[in-house]
Amino acid sequence: MSAEPASDRVRLRRGANRAEYDRDAVLAVLDAGMIAHVGVTTPEGPIVLPMAYGRDDEWLYVHGSVANAALRAAVGTDICITVTIVDGMVVGRCPFHNSMNYRGVVVRGLARKVTDADEHLRALRLVSDHVMPTWDSARAPNAVEIRQTLVVAVALTEMSAKIRAGDPIDEPDDIDGPHWAGHVPLRTTWEPPVDAGDLPDGISVPPGIASLAGQRA
Amino acid sequence: MSAEPASDRVRLRRGANRAEYDRDAVLAVLDAGMIAHVGVTTPEGPIVLPMAYGRDDEWLYVHGSVANAALRAAVGTDICITVTIVDGMVVGRCPFHNSMNYRGVVVRGLARKVTDADEHLRALRLVSDHVMPTWDSARAPNAVEIRQTLVVAVALTEMSAKIRAGDPIDEPDDIDGPHWAGHVPLRTTWEPPVDAGDLPDGISVPPGIASLAGQRA
Repeated sequence: MSAEPASDRVRLRRGANRAEYDRDAVLAVLDAGMIAHVGVTTPEGPIVLPMAYGRDDEWLYVHGSVANAALRAAVGTDICITVTIVDGMVVGRCPFHNSMNYRGVVVRGLARKVTDADEHLRALRLVSDHVMPTWDSARAPNAVEIRQTLVVAVALTEMSAKIRAGDPIDEPDDIDGPHWAGHVPLRTTWEPPVDAGDLPDGISVPPGIASLAGQRA
Repeated sequence: MSAEPASDRVRLRRGANRAEYDRDAVLAVLDAGMIAHVGVTTPEGPIVLPMAYGRDDEWLYVHGSVANAALRAAVGTDICITVTIVDGMVVGRCPFHNSMNYRGVVVRGLARKVTDADEHLRALRLVSDHVMPTWDSARAPNAVEIRQTLVVAVALTEMSAKIRAGDPIDEPDDIDGPHWAGHVPLRTTWEPPVDAGDLPDGISVPPGIASLAGQRA
């Protein structure tokens, strides 16, 4: 454990020994993650939807269509943005001690609709380039496309990470027993890019995308 | 699109052409997924936490410690359980048409605390064996361990899936332009199992775990 949480609502109570409030450690998990699960309160109960995300030093951004009901409902309310990377399964001598190895971040805060044109464009680029940088090799979005995209920001203030790695923690009485224990890592890699069916001949994959093949995602 | 949703709160409004309400199709995504993101309403705003899950024909189960605050708060309230599998990134001629290929399910409903002893034990096994079957090769949980685990069930009734695969859908004017378009698949595989540091000599990996190495997770 390191540092202290910014608020009690992001303090880990269970598994507090795996809590990580250090800002750089939390941001490193956000940078390594691929999608966020965004929780929004609605009159019909909470809704959790997967979204792309990006960040700068101050803000975590998610985006969607201006017609996206959950994102519209989020604006002006407290939301929760959770990013989880599953690194493997942990197998204890008893299933009670099975677990997962993972890196996860929870960010809670007020969802602010981004209205400033410069911030809006910058946020779109951050979200777009978070997993795979394509902004510079693509056609720039036009004003109509930009207007169709709602960007929501949450301050990178109230956040915490939980990180688990390695072996199961079994009962002392089980250690010398006959059951296997260990962990099984997962590996996610990029496969070679696939041209769109409507791609004209002679257009090659941008180097930044081509070079991903075989690499860890 | 196939079938009709069980309620309006699981009807897809955006991307309705990618909606899937057919029961078998939704269940197939749940069976292929690894973790759920569970959304619970709290006085401090929604909280979204990653959890293991399992299912039978009627119920989706998640579990946690009896001291898990979010899970305790869930009981008796409407919650949302979201399972997302990211299959790859979709690159349009313009970032506005970037997307992801994915299979996702949203289940909404009342969180019921499982109190019946038989159902409780059965649910623990379903959750435990969902990603990697270890129940039969491990020591059985004892009464104390079972009592420490809270199981919450949500009916597999109000649910929908959203599935996207393949190429970007670009602007007609962009198709003959100079920009690359396509998609980049992701592949998640199991690595070889790693023995726990405290594993005595001579205990081998159960065949059901050993055989996973190199296979798609």
